[in-house]
Amino acid sequence: MAKISIAQHILAANEVVAEEIRQMLTPRGIRTINVMSSPGAGKTTLLERTIERLQGKLGIGVIDGDIETTADADRIEAAGAADAIQINTRGACHLEAHMIRAALSEIDLSHIGLLFIENIGNLVCPSSWDLGEDTRVVVVSTTEGDDKPAKYPHMFATSQVMVVNKLDLLPYVDYDLDKVKEHALTINPHLRIFEVSCRTGAGLDAWCEWLVAFARDNAEVARKIVQEV
Amino acid sequence: MAKISIAQHILAANEVVAEEIRQMLTPRGIRTINVMSSPGAGKTTLLERTIERLQGKLGIGVIDGDIETTADADRIEAAGAADAIQINTRGACHLEAHMIRAALSEIDLSHIGLLFIENIGNLVCPSSWDLGEDTRVVVVSTTEGDDKPAKYPHMFATSQVMVVNKLDLLPYVDYDLDKVKEHALTINPHLRIFEVSCRTGAGLDAWCEWLVAFARDNAEVARKIVQEV
Repeated sequence: MAKISIAQHILAANEVVAEEIRQMLTPRGIRTINVMSSPGAGKTTLLERTIERLQGKLGIGVIDGDIETTADADRIEAAGAADAIQINTRGACHLEAHMIRAALSEIDLSHIGLLFIENIGNLVCPSSWDLGEDTRVVVVSTTEGDDKPAKYPHMFATSQVMVVNKLDLLPYVDYDLDKVKEHALTINPHLRIFEVSCRTGAGLDAWCEWLVAFARDNAEVARKIVQEV
Repeated sequence: MAKISIAQHILAANEVVAEEIRQMLTPRGIRTINVMSSPGAGKTTLLERTIERLQGKLGIGVIDGDIETTADADRIEAAGAADAIQINTRGACHLEAHMIRAALSEIDLSHIGLLFIENIGNLVCPSSWDLGEDTRVVVVSTTEGDDKPAKYPHMFATSQVMVVNKLDLLPYVDYDLDKVKEHALTINPHLRIFEVSCRTGAGLDAWCEWLVAFARDNAEVARKIVQEV
């Protein structure tokens, strides 16, 4: 069927650019994380709190995807990111690798150890597009119902980390946190899970420690690559 | 560019089927509402509470779109819908008119005055697809941040009604309800707005009264069409 083969062709072309991005960033010791979620699960707030906490420890850059507005990149810059750039997709429901490549040419990479790509708020389409990231984080929140892993399995199957945000609202909602974790781990037994509240700060230390370890791990890989060349 | 023209062709084909659906449902006096939102804004819960309240007043059918699982249609049936059917898109991020046409052949329309189509949880892609509905409702919730109309304008521009759900959680979140309404009305000055809590029942009377009036209005249109034929 024509529609499917074209889609596959586009995805294959995307893979080539994604691999090009990885080849460019890994030897520089820059570790990249693709952050995905529903609209309003708290991606931008999580990045704000993360940047504030890692100030002076790790240079953080952010490529911020949105359909419209530069509100997110403005917030990220105010939080103290080494550099932040906004991509406006003008209607498109996900980021693609060529958008990241274009954004990378505009961003100052020299002080960046960890690069976040904040995807469009959408639990469906972004999961099919490799952006050249090293790992994928899906953010869910306690206010959006505990059926999300079951209903959007591809997102959880293709992510390495799940952050459950808005822990502070647990007393006011019907949300079975154990059920969410169980469902998510059934889909993807290797998923690493963090439980946080960006409002109270609960759980953010563990998340930030993991990020630092993750970024360092890559710096070592990069040194090895340089030594071998 | 090839990609764009193919997309336009697919959308045009969708329009033909959508119009066919309208031509089929309007003379039967069935009014159709396409309900859209982010994942977890509360579409299914809103439909459950609505069906319970309109029991005996209005026959309600639901076509329930999900990527996976039949959980939503099960909940809708338990709430007392005249008939409910589940569409599983197996990965697709939105419903299309041909899926609705197929679902209509499986649903008993004889006792239905109002047909809800519960779309995939996604604030982006569903807004581009006409499903043969008479009106569109976008559901937002107080826990997903007050920047949604500004960041996903096409959804609000193409909807006729906005329901703000989870009013009961307002005291616990940073959510400027006036800002949301102002932004939404700037994008679409004709938007009708309801503020509800599906948990406490606040605002549901006004919403249900509007639904009954909306369904009756169409029944009159249908009678006219029959008389004229």
